[in-house]
Amino acid sequence: MSDNAQTALAQRARHLDSEHLATDRRDAFVLPEGVIYLDGNSLGAMSVAARDATADAVTRQWGQQLIRAWNESAWWTAPERVGDRIASLVGAPSGSVVVGDSTTISLFKAVHAAARLRPDRRVVLTDPDSFPTDVHVTRGVCDQLGLTLELVSPRDAVARLEGSNDVALAAYSHVDYRTGELWDLAAITEAAHQVGALACWDLCHSAGVVDVGLTEGAADFAVGCGYKYLSGGPGAPAFLFVAPQHLAEFTNPILGWNGHAAPFAMSPDHVPADGITRARVGTPPVLGIAALEGALTAYEGLDMGDVRRRSLSLTGFFVECLDALGVDLPIVTPRDDRRGSQVSLRHPAAYAVVQALIARGVIGDFREPDIVRLGFAPLYLSHEDVLTAARHLRDVIDGAEFARPEHAARAAVT
Amino acid sequence: MSDNAQTALAQRARHLDSEHLATDRRDAFVLPEGVIYLDGNSLGAMSVAARDATADAVTRQWGQQLIRAWNESAWWTAPERVGDRIASLVGAPSGSVVVGDSTTISLFKAVHAAARLRPDRRVVLTDPDSFPTDVHVTRGVCDQLGLTLELVSPRDAVARLEGSNDVALAAYSHVDYRTGELWDLAAITEAAHQVGALACWDLCHSAGVVDVGLTEGAADFAVGCGYKYLSGGPGAPAFLFVAPQHLAEFTNPILGWNGHAAPFAMSPDHVPADGITRARVGTPPVLGIAALEGALTAYEGLDMGDVRRRSLSLTGFFVECLDALGVDLPIVTPRDDRRGSQVSLRHPAAYAVVQALIARGVIGDFREPDIVRLGFAPLYLSHEDVLTAARHLRDVIDGAEFARPEHAARAAVT
Repeated sequence: MSDNAQTALAQRARHLDSEHLATDRRDAFVLPEGVIYLDGNSLGAMSVAARDATADAVTRQWGQQLIRAWNESAWWTAPERVGDRIASLVGAPSGSVVVGDSTTISLFKAVHAAARLRPDRRVVLTDPDSFPTDVHVTRGVCDQLGLTLELVSPRDAVARLEGSNDVALAAYSHVDYRTGELWDLAAITEAAHQVGALACWDLCHSAGVVDVGLTEGAADFAVGCGYKYLSGGPGAPAFLFVAPQHLAEFTNPILGWNGHAAPFAMSPDHVPADGITRARVGTPPVLGIAALEGALTAYEGLDMGDVRRRSLSLTGFFVECLDALGVDLPIVTPRDDRRGSQVSLRHPAAYAVVQALIARGVIGDFREPDIVRLGFAPLYLSHEDVLTAARHLRDVIDGAEFARPEHAARAAVT
Repeated sequence: MSDNAQTALAQRARHLDSEHLATDRRDAFVLPEGVIYLDGNSLGAMSVAARDATADAVTRQWGQQLIRAWNESAWWTAPERVGDRIASLVGAPSGSVVVGDSTTISLFKAVHAAARLRPDRRVVLTDPDSFPTDVHVTRGVCDQLGLTLELVSPRDAVARLEGSNDVALAAYSHVDYRTGELWDLAAITEAAHQVGALACWDLCHSAGVVDVGLTEGAADFAVGCGYKYLSGGPGAPAFLFVAPQHLAEFTNPILGWNGHAAPFAMSPDHVPADGITRARVGTPPVLGIAALEGALTAYEGLDMGDVRRRSLSLTGFFVECLDALGVDLPIVTPRDDRRGSQVSLRHPAAYAVVQALIARGVIGDFREPDIVRLGFAPLYLSHEDVLTAARHLRDVIDGAEFARPEHAARAAVT
């Protein structure tokens, strides 16, 4: 590549950064020196606010207020309060989202509740290529309720739904965790509704980067995790959305005191709370919620449409850089706008490519069988970072660094 | 009370403290100036180690190691590692306890799994006076599986079990959360086993203060929470024990990727992991586990028999002080050793009594309908604290401070 072309690419990176200045939140985050972090889709980076909120929850609230913090620091209502913050990011109304538990458990609740709302239907659709926990938990619920789990790609979901009368629920991920493909939430939901079925969406790879539009897309249920693009911290609590029109009939399959209408009456009879509170189960994970609540302040003042445009610009520019730098790997992620905030590439030695990148300070991840997965968290990555990452990838490929034996040794958690 | 009697009581407090010096861990904890904290049975106090472990997990592990912390800081195996620490406190073998999720969800898993092990039995016994979430979740599972929930006091459980052939599971709390009565884990478990039933124990109010002896008592399942006497922090993850002989047949009702034999193979078929790992569901709440792991270091070098003796000495001395100081309230908690680590008293204005105590820096809690509940966390309370608390209670009662209107106003979370 000529010096002129190099300079032009660098200039274009700076130009794009200036165009997207309004959504630059890099200063809100702490990242290690010399790291370009392309794994915010697996574990989002730590923000100053998340760090400080956790320290405050531990040292001042727990340490000094002790039991009084349930009132004085409003721990009790944190699941709904933080839920409302997330609702505003995924296009859902206040009072429709609650945080707590894991994504898997949230999906367990959603699928169970959806099946109860369609007692005459016997089929649940899900994507065979979903993140495995989605398939596991959905199959588990189907087995418990005597339903049939049918594995249908979201690509074929509309056709499967058309004219059918057996489907209770279509449960899909909004973005494919491996390929980064963004599915049409509104179209699949509409196809489900046309035949009397419901739709549940896993937003793990779209919340915080895509203008999800749950209300606009008429989604019935949704879940998502707090620790990817939302940067809520390792194992952050997940969120569960129940569309307002289903709340009165929502049945929680795990009945606990936090979902009770009067938890402190200590009555042995379970009376579900009004609204989304009935989706709660046990005592909320206060420290995890505190970190997540702090992290979400990074979105204050941002429009999700602008965040989405920045995200598309970053991933689009990365592909542009690969083309310009002559990195000739198959790109799995759609080049048009039907993508989340990642770019996935195929390479026969994908695991070692990722390790070689990490050795250079570019942290992405590997996904079976041959995928180099690079996530672009829009709030703390710039187009200049993107160009630098692309150059490192070129050097890894051109210099065959992936062939070095030290990059092939697998870690326990990949 | 004469000056001589006062002096004698104070001397006795100091003497008892010197006798129990080996179990004094007060320096490991941070408590606000001027507070005597008798609510460690609701939210245990913060330890220096819990605070530091959380800060390290946030700032260094998450902030600097980022995604690499799953390996470098062994986040992935934390649920079993911290489970092993708890196992040693409750008399269970290594590999039988895992942490994560809430107590309610852990109990949901245990009751479901137990019912699967006794498919021919249709009845589950539980205590109508259990903490409500236990009754709610157990009834919920029974409804899902077509079983009958029978509310039988632990007092009558052995008689109910004798000669029966219909009981699948006896699910009881080890210590009554209101009265503090300690039930006979071994005797009820033995009665269950005699008739082919299983026993599940909720250790929320015994873990960390009673020498529980799960193996010795032959318990089949147990759950407990991390945020009471274990001082793991607000909403700390709970723990689940499955007796080794049941592990191979243990079926998790919520199938997630963390309970899978090969989670990173990303296979859509669920193959349960070996051992207690199969009881895991989703991504573990890393920050909550870090706080709990730090907190548990307070038990290092302690024998649970010694901790139990200290606990009994503290609660016994409190009753002795009340008698000596002429505080004439009905004591609900057994005066003999059949008690956990609390003393509960009845008073018609119990809520206001608790508020008046809090105004004096003695933090306990109120439980419906008329219970003043005072928990004595043995690791950070001394006999001198106990005497001071008893004197405050005498002053509140003798001065009718509970009658002041400011003490009657109920907070949202009581």
